Amino acid sequence: MTQRKIAGVLGATGSVGQRFILLLSNHPTFELKVLGASSRSAGKKYVDATNWKQTDLMPVSAENIIVSECSAEAFKDCDIVFSGLDADYAGPIEKEFREAGLAVVSNAKNYRREPEVPLVVPIVNPEHLEIVETAVSKAKAEGKAKPGFIVCISNCSTAGLVAPLKPLVDKFGPIDMLTTTTLQAISGAGFSPGVPGIDILDNVIPYIGGEEDKMEWETKKILGPLAEDKSHVQLLTPDEIKVSAQCNRVAVSDGHTECISLRFKNRPAPSVEDVKQTLRDYVCDAYKLGCHSAPKQTIHVLDQNDRPQPRLDRNRDAGYGVSVGRIREDPVLDFKMVVLSHNTIIGAAGSGVLIAEILAAKNII
Amino acid sequence: MTQRKIAGVLGATGSVGQRFILLLSNHPTFELKVLGASSRSAGKKYVDATNWKQTDLMPVSAENIIVSECSAEAFKDCDIVFSGLDADYAGPIEKEFREAGLAVVSNAKNYRREPEVPLVVPIVNPEHLEIVETAVSKAKAEGKAKPGFIVCISNCSTAGLVAPLKPLVDKFGPIDMLTTTTLQAISGAGFSPGVPGIDILDNVIPYIGGEEDKMEWETKKILGPLAEDKSHVQLLTPDEIKVSAQCNRVAVSDGHTECISLRFKNRPAPSVEDVKQTLRDYVCDAYKLGCHSAPKQTIHVLDQNDRPQPRLDRNRDAGYGVSVGRIREDPVLDFKMVVLSHNTIIGAAGSGVLIAEILAAKNII
Amino acid sequence: MTQRKIAGVLGATGSVGQRFILLLSNHPTFELKVLGASSRSAGKKYVDATNWKQTDLMPVSAENIIVSECSAEAFKDCDIVFSGLDADYAGPIEKEFREAGLAVVSNAKNYRREPEVPLVVPIVNPEHLEIVETAVSKAKAEGKAKPGFIVCISNCSTAGLVAPLKPLVDKFGPIDMLTTTTLQAISGAGFSPGVPGIDILDNVIPYIGGEEDKMEWETKKILGPLAEDKSHVQLLTPDEIKVSAQCNRVAVSDGHTECISLRFKNRPAPSVEDVKQTLRDYVCDAYKLGCHSAPKQTIHVLDQNDRPQPRLDRNRDAGYGVSVGRIREDPVLDFKMVVLSHNTIIGAAGSGVLIAEILAAKNII
Amino acid sequence: MTQRKIAGVLGATGSVGQRFILLLSNHPTFELKVLGASSRSAGKKYVDATNWKQTDLMPVSAENIIVSECSAEAFKDCDIVFSGLDADYAGPIEKEFREAGLAVVSNAKNYRREPEVPLVVPIVNPEHLEIVETAVSKAKAEGKAKPGFIVCISNCSTAGLVAPLKPLVDKFGPIDMLTTTTLQAISGAGFSPGVPGIDILDNVIPYIGGEEDKMEWETKKILGPLAEDKSHVQLLTPDEIKVSAQCNRVAVSDGHTECISLRFKNRPAPSVEDVKQTLRDYVCDAYKLGCHSAPKQTIHVLDQNDRPQPRLDRNRDAGYGVSVGRIREDPVLDFKMVVLSHNTIIGAAGSGVLIAEILAAKNII
Repeated sequence: MTQRKIAGVLGATGSVGQRFILLLSNHPTFELKVLGASSRSAGKKYVDATNWKQTDLMPVSAENIIVSECSAEAFKDCDIVFSGLDADYAGPIEKEFREAGLAVVSNAKNYRREPEVPLVVPIVNPEHLEIVETAVSKAKAEGKAKPGFIVCISNCSTAGLVAPLKPLVDKFGPIDMLTTTTLQAISGAGFSPGVPGIDILDNVIPYIGGEEDKMEWETKKILGPLAEDKSHVQLLTPDEIKVSAQCNRVAVSDGHTECISLRFKNRPAPSVEDVKQTLRDYVCDAYKLGCHSAPKQTIHVLDQNDRPQPRLDRNRDAGYGVSVGRIREDPVLDFKMVVLSHNTIIGAAGSGVLIAEILAAKNII
Repeated sequence: MTQRKIAGVLGATGSVGQRFILLLSNHPTFELKVLGASSRSAGKKYVDATNWKQTDLMPVSAENIIVSECSAEAFKDCDIVFSGLDADYAGPIEKEFREAGLAVVSNAKNYRREPEVPLVVPIVNPEHLEIVETAVSKAKAEGKAKPGFIVCISNCSTAGLVAPLKPLVDKFGPIDMLTTTTLQAISGAGFSPGVPGIDILDNVIPYIGGEEDKMEWETKKILGPLAEDKSHVQLLTPDEIKVSAQCNRVAVSDGHTECISLRFKNRPAPSVEDVKQTLRDYVCDAYKLGCHSAPKQTIHVLDQNDRPQPRLDRNRDAGYGVSVGRIREDPVLDFKMVVLSHNTIIGAAGSGVLIAEILAAKNII
Repeated sequence: MTQRKIAGVLGATGSVGQRFILLLSNHPTFELKVLGASSRSAGKKYVDATNWKQTDLMPVSAENIIVSECSAEAFKDCDIVFSGLDADYAGPIEKEFREAGLAVVSNAKNYRREPEVPLVVPIVNPEHLEIVETAVSKAKAEGKAKPGFIVCISNCSTAGLVAPLKPLVDKFGPIDMLTTTTLQAISGAGFSPGVPGIDILDNVIPYIGGEEDKMEWETKKILGPLAEDKSHVQLLTPDEIKVSAQCNRVAVSDGHTECISLRFKNRPAPSVEDVKQTLRDYVCDAYKLGCHSAPKQTIHVLDQNDRPQPRLDRNRDAGYGVSVGRIREDPVLDFKMVVLSHNTIIGAAGSGVLIAEILAAKNII
Repeated sequence: MTQRKIAGVLGATGSVGQRFILLLSNHPTFELKVLGASSRSAGKKYVDATNWKQTDLMPVSAENIIVSECSAEAFKDCDIVFSGLDADYAGPIEKEFREAGLAVVSNAKNYRREPEVPLVVPIVNPEHLEIVETAVSKAKAEGKAKPGFIVCISNCSTAGLVAPLKPLVDKFGPIDMLTTTTLQAISGAGFSPGVPGIDILDNVIPYIGGEEDKMEWETKKILGPLAEDKSHVQLLTPDEIKVSAQCNRVAVSDGHTECISLRFKNRPAPSVEDVKQTLRDYVCDAYKLGCHSAPKQTIHVLDQNDRPQPRLDRNRDAGYGVSVGRIREDPVLDFKMVVLSHNTIIGAAGSGVLIAEILAAKNII
């Protein structure tokens, strides 16, 4: 095994941080060395600082790491830093890290809307990483130090939405209108306290603060083109695509279900069979690059009429695969279908790890 | 108290039948006298024949009624018969009852698509009952015996959908396009066995057999006009309204949540505030007629952004009121909103009882 | 209607406070006038200060009450004060109220272990209220001002446990050994945040902080005798009764299920039928006194082998009745059985209201 | 890899059968070749005959196996047959297989109470397999054909109960009294239909038909000694051990939680620390034999006071390890503790596979 790259995790004691640690355990490309958390935890062993709440046990290799402060100094040897920080803290910390020349892959929302920050679902738009690739190459050519950068992971529900859109747009041209109604798992809300039990038992909460706006906006960035000079992403305009999201929280632990409808710009629309075949045939670039976590089957097209279901399908391809079922004609737009994605894997920490694998495969880090 | 009308219940031991019995207990207009079930139950006391599964106790008045066969003969003294029969049995039995001159209000789907059978959500389209009113009046004028008839209760998820549509169409004109994604409770599936626990715990089932077609079709009948001679209802055409439904089962006991979007035909569309006010101002005819079960507030417009919720809002106006929240502009159609209705009250047995109250108030029975 | 007594609620915006307000709405004996909460809420209308989370709507009569500080001065006109305060705050406030001559019925645990403070489950040991009755009578006889006092409501799971024990001890003599394993609802944990959804979905939490100790200790006080001078309660000793509790949290909204086993001191033990009949025949004193909320049937003995169940049985007698099922011989102790009680009614606020009704019926307030 | 033994599964399309198939996929010792089911399924490909409901995908190797009838003829080449048949069918079929000289490991209850049939929890009492070992050796010595036999897997909740008892009895001597209250997962009830969703959502069902009797009886067989001639197991008498079980179904998918209390016969009782250490030190024979599925850590003693929890701990050692927490003194008996076991792994199919691995390791098959 070649020398593994050194990895750190910011917000290591939180829900997303714990997931990063699990996914980085025994990873062929990355070696987890630095764990950062709040001052309250810094100085303690990770095992003592953490209320571990994952269904998999804490990796033994993480137990005895002494938790650091979230300072660039503490992470200075890291080839890659994964940030699971809350948005309340992520802003200045991630900025400090970038300025210190570190490579940050962040699950926080703070920098998602900066045009020069790639917002990446690794099975969908890895080409947006050319922004940082270009910057790194340029510095290299100029004999400068490697520049720091931030790559943002998308919102969890956006990841599931755009996964089937990408191959469809590639094949059938732009989407004119898109609606999605989500039935989202509670794990995405973290656990301090996350969604109260009394609110979700025998109940639906038809609102997730900020979520609908995130889905509508992020879709336009993720599906948007790179600027010619590869310095930033161009947002799709409302003329180019109309997106409407309705977000609900349901009593599911992991796995976001989305009922989507869409209309292509081009007429006539493709057939249902064309749509299915296109999704089945799609192979994401990360898989072609040989990335360790890349799903063998990016999109699982399910033919049983009662699938996908979160409990049965969320773990396909270890949570990196997205399942799509019930693809059928829609009396209002062109097609409707049900999409299921694992919100903490392809919708959060898992995407972060796969992004880093792509960065490593392309020698950007 | 004036003489109460004699009522019977078909399918009395089943889920819907039990609900009818609860709702008819101590009813000011109806006196429950006849309970019909399968041969296996016939001849037994109701309390012995029934696996009672309601959260309210079995009415003492029902306990000792001897269960009858589902024959018109056994129900011949009934002014009104409520049918909670499974679709597998309802066809010939309800037909026999109608031919025997009985008035049947049925929760079964079998006759919903007959043009001369009113398909009624009592807080929405009681005017469709004019079909039977006309027939009864005509027979009376001709000195003939009162004719039997069937009135159908709509599908549970259709009831919630059309409730807010009616006042909107009355005020702002026809709806051009309509989409709904439902999050449906499991009580609607009955309990023999209904939805298996292992299928719904920590899960969503993105499919309910026949449900989407029912919603799309029934909406066009319920919102359709009466023929001029009041002999039947005219279905809206696809040119008049496009309807698309996506139906999901979630881990909720009672209360269907629906995320709907709609576009009016007329331009410009009304404002959000106009829509809200129109819904708030709506008073259903059943309430004006003084019907016992009619909701005082037909549509509850909720302003908190995380409402309506099934656990908190399903029992408004004893389950006869419908709650609507999150009314906002939709980037794709005109408006989106969340509708919550109690699937076993306004979506099933409760609607049946309220229909019968309207029939009584109008002297049709 | 005679003049109603003036009531106040401490901790009015919290989970228990909201329950008190619901139960006191349109109450024949009490008129709710004063609502106390933290400084953050004081001065606001109740409707504006409160995140209402009950399945029943907020009583209109409470909406416009201006929230007070929790000072004795603000409650000085109250005949009775119900405290739903958190234990973190209840100590000094309830003490101040008692010293100011106010009658307090408290759901907090702070004073439960003071020997002169009655710890009362109103369907079980109202005779312990003689402590305050005696004190009040004495002050009256001596021409002194009415003394303030505190009466404590028991822990929620203790209430269900002792309900069937009382009639059994009255009839068959003391209990030697008693074990209980609880399956407790989440509503008892309040909602800020209470039990996190991710912790309880598809899960059991086999621990509730302090709960087992409370059950084991409180049982000994509630079943203990009054001192001869009626100044305090004498705790049962470990020689008199051994109690062991194991407490679990399960995914139930309301209703604590307890699997109990017990052994009587006297030999031979009674028969199962004797036990059932004794429970069926029990009529609590509160009912004999004509208290408004007292259950008509104190203990519901259920014969179906799969009952009681929280969803189906928690609301018997409006949550003031306790259900007992599966009474059978135990190979280890004498009997085992399943007890179900509504944790927020007979296990918390409801008990408080019924205690106050007893106090009023006995002219203690 | 040495030649693998040929395995068959009876009841292959059912819940337990599906589990067997998953566990036998890519198994180093067994090669799955024969799948038996009802006549309705026989002749079809397994993938077409089965409503697959596992969270893991159907093994590709099973998909195309043509389903057989459940006849000994069809399984005649099998070295080992796993039976996941319903008790309604298992009786005559398993008898036919035994008479035909086949080795059957059965999850059905039909033969558990035959003294000469070993009832085995493989991490607890593999020594009971000496009954069949002896019979096989004897036949071999006599030059006779290998005799058929049945080994029974215990009831799911019994498996969790006896797991910690075995090392304790080995170290501290016999148990005098034992009580258990279970909180059982719904997967154990199968899925046709299993536990209805409406019965378990926001609910507890305090009854599982036959379960308490099974637990009380099976414990006495599993902990009982072999007869001197190794021809059968001697049941413990009520004088030797008193066992009392109370069984509940809760809203958990997988993982049975049991709150147990026990009293040793010997005085003084050991200390809590002694009990913990004894459980920690226990290594089951299957592990010493090098069996593929044997848990590395048989009993996980958890020190956090809110563990074990089904969602977090059920998968320890791939579901073959049992977790024990909250070990503490009991005011009534000696100790109380919480035991968690995976009901479909160590409590059903998994135990069957591990039993077969032991049989293979000992050259009994």
